[in-house]
Amino acid sequence: MNFPTKLKIAVVGTGAIGAYYGSLLAQAGHEVHFLLRSDYEAVKANGYHVQTPKAKFHLHPVNAHNNTADIGPCDLVVIALKTTANAIFPEILPPLNSPGKTVFLTLQNGMGNVEKLGELFGLENVVAGLCFVCVNRTAPGVIENYMPGYIQIAEASGTARERTQALAKILQDSGTECKVSDSLERALWCKLCWNVPFNGIAIAAGGITTDKIMQSPPLRILAEKLMRELQAAAAAYGVSISEKFIEGQFTVTDGMGPYKPSSLIDYWEKRPVEVESIWGEPLRRGLAKGIPMGNLDCLYHLLDHLVRAKA
Amino acid sequence: MNFPTKLKIAVVGTGAIGAYYGSLLAQAGHEVHFLLRSDYEAVKANGYHVQTPKAKFHLHPVNAHNNTADIGPCDLVVIALKTTANAIFPEILPPLNSPGKTVFLTLQNGMGNVEKLGELFGLENVVAGLCFVCVNRTAPGVIENYMPGYIQIAEASGTARERTQALAKILQDSGTECKVSDSLERALWCKLCWNVPFNGIAIAAGGITTDKIMQSPPLRILAEKLMRELQAAAAAYGVSISEKFIEGQFTVTDGMGPYKPSSLIDYWEKRPVEVESIWGEPLRRGLAKGIPMGNLDCLYHLLDHLVRAKA
Repeated sequence: MNFPTKLKIAVVGTGAIGAYYGSLLAQAGHEVHFLLRSDYEAVKANGYHVQTPKAKFHLHPVNAHNNTADIGPCDLVVIALKTTANAIFPEILPPLNSPGKTVFLTLQNGMGNVEKLGELFGLENVVAGLCFVCVNRTAPGVIENYMPGYIQIAEASGTARERTQALAKILQDSGTECKVSDSLERALWCKLCWNVPFNGIAIAAGGITTDKIMQSPPLRILAEKLMRELQAAAAAYGVSISEKFIEGQFTVTDGMGPYKPSSLIDYWEKRPVEVESIWGEPLRRGLAKGIPMGNLDCLYHLLDHLVRAKA
Repeated sequence: MNFPTKLKIAVVGTGAIGAYYGSLLAQAGHEVHFLLRSDYEAVKANGYHVQTPKAKFHLHPVNAHNNTADIGPCDLVVIALKTTANAIFPEILPPLNSPGKTVFLTLQNGMGNVEKLGELFGLENVVAGLCFVCVNRTAPGVIENYMPGYIQIAEASGTARERTQALAKILQDSGTECKVSDSLERALWCKLCWNVPFNGIAIAAGGITTDKIMQSPPLRILAEKLMRELQAAAAAYGVSISEKFIEGQFTVTDGMGPYKPSSLIDYWEKRPVEVESIWGEPLRRGLAKGIPMGNLDCLYHLLDHLVRAKA
């Protein structure tokens, strides 16, 4: 399939990630429609103010909507909802779909997202984008990107193909680095090797930044044990994660200083934490293959409790 | 061996447990010497005030000492030190030992205590007493017992014998129920089936009482998973723990209300928490037998961190 030069795009989930990439795509000339809830009035009135390390722009006016029926079928649907809201997919996404034409790109965290979209629209119409980026919504309609990073995209089924490359080019042309992966399975397990230990321990160890994890001998050990369990589970799904990759997670984190993982910020601000997609789903997948995942099991249940207790 | 009618007893470690049982033994007519640190002046001057659900007594004067050389060899040495202080055994215990005559009774928590005493004085001279009791030191020299409970004693090596029964009778005659067990291994794993999950989760889940654990679905699941790991480890050491026993831990805890496990109180009051004897040692013993103990592994490392961070 080929994308038209100018896409009609819906952005569903307009927290930092959705607002940021949606604004970039709009700024690049695409027809971007944003589904907004709490920021609807602010964005409708004042548009998006986007700040990146290299640039600053003001997107105004913005195609702001409060329901998807008003948007109608799109070429591309960018989904950046919290995974805790995935249950509303069947309610809000169908009006955006033009069967056989619409591509659904989920920029969400963790596992289980492409499957839920696949049930509704066919897995062949779903692409996953893993975001390695640092972006915050500092006020309604105000988006700050601190570290440009990149998106790693992969087909929900099969390896990368022409459509994947075309989508990567669209993202790249909008100003974000985009890498194409041939294996979503690999991309997901690898990303979880960081998110599972560091997002999780940051909350479970009392609410601490990643430098505190790195400085604590027992927490470094725990982080590695969690990575080892993910490595074993990944292997059961045909994904080999190297020792060098595991070591690299520590090297990278050592360089991050007092970093607040996104789940920790969500937890502190009493927003939903993506417990199932980041910890629950990989746990269930590992256990389904008979992999001992006790460290993850314990962490998952503690987080599940802490998040409920905080809410 | 036979104990004399009136024993010379040293009590080493005079927190709530040591002070309570030592006072009962002194009240019963034995010559009891207390090794005191922070409460030395108060106890020397005012003795021990002991309150139980059934009685109240004032032990005065007390044989208060600040070093064991002044006490000299004893028939019985009752050790109620925090296990975090076990490294000082070689420094403080030898003056109390009359080789071949002195019995060392450790009333401490968790695993690894009899082995450390055995290295110094021979395992055949060591008896373990597991305390199922609720007793607090509410002020220097003031001991309050809320639930009389019982002590379960077992030989450090081999099954119960005449000496074990005699020691049980001495304890019983002092006013505490005492049960004799034929297997220390069994007694330890069984007690840990409560202490590991409930003392541990109470701290790791943010500092909560046991009723909050019981009311939280994920924490109940976690508690059971921890018990299952202990059950499997115990089996590897020849101890069969029944389903009924596991269920019973929940029933008992349901009846306890908003109970504060002793480790949680220690944690809150920034006193040493017995991380190694309650969580570290059973973990190492299970892993040594190839038992997957990931839930305990994670809990242990989180506790190790939390306790260090709080100190």
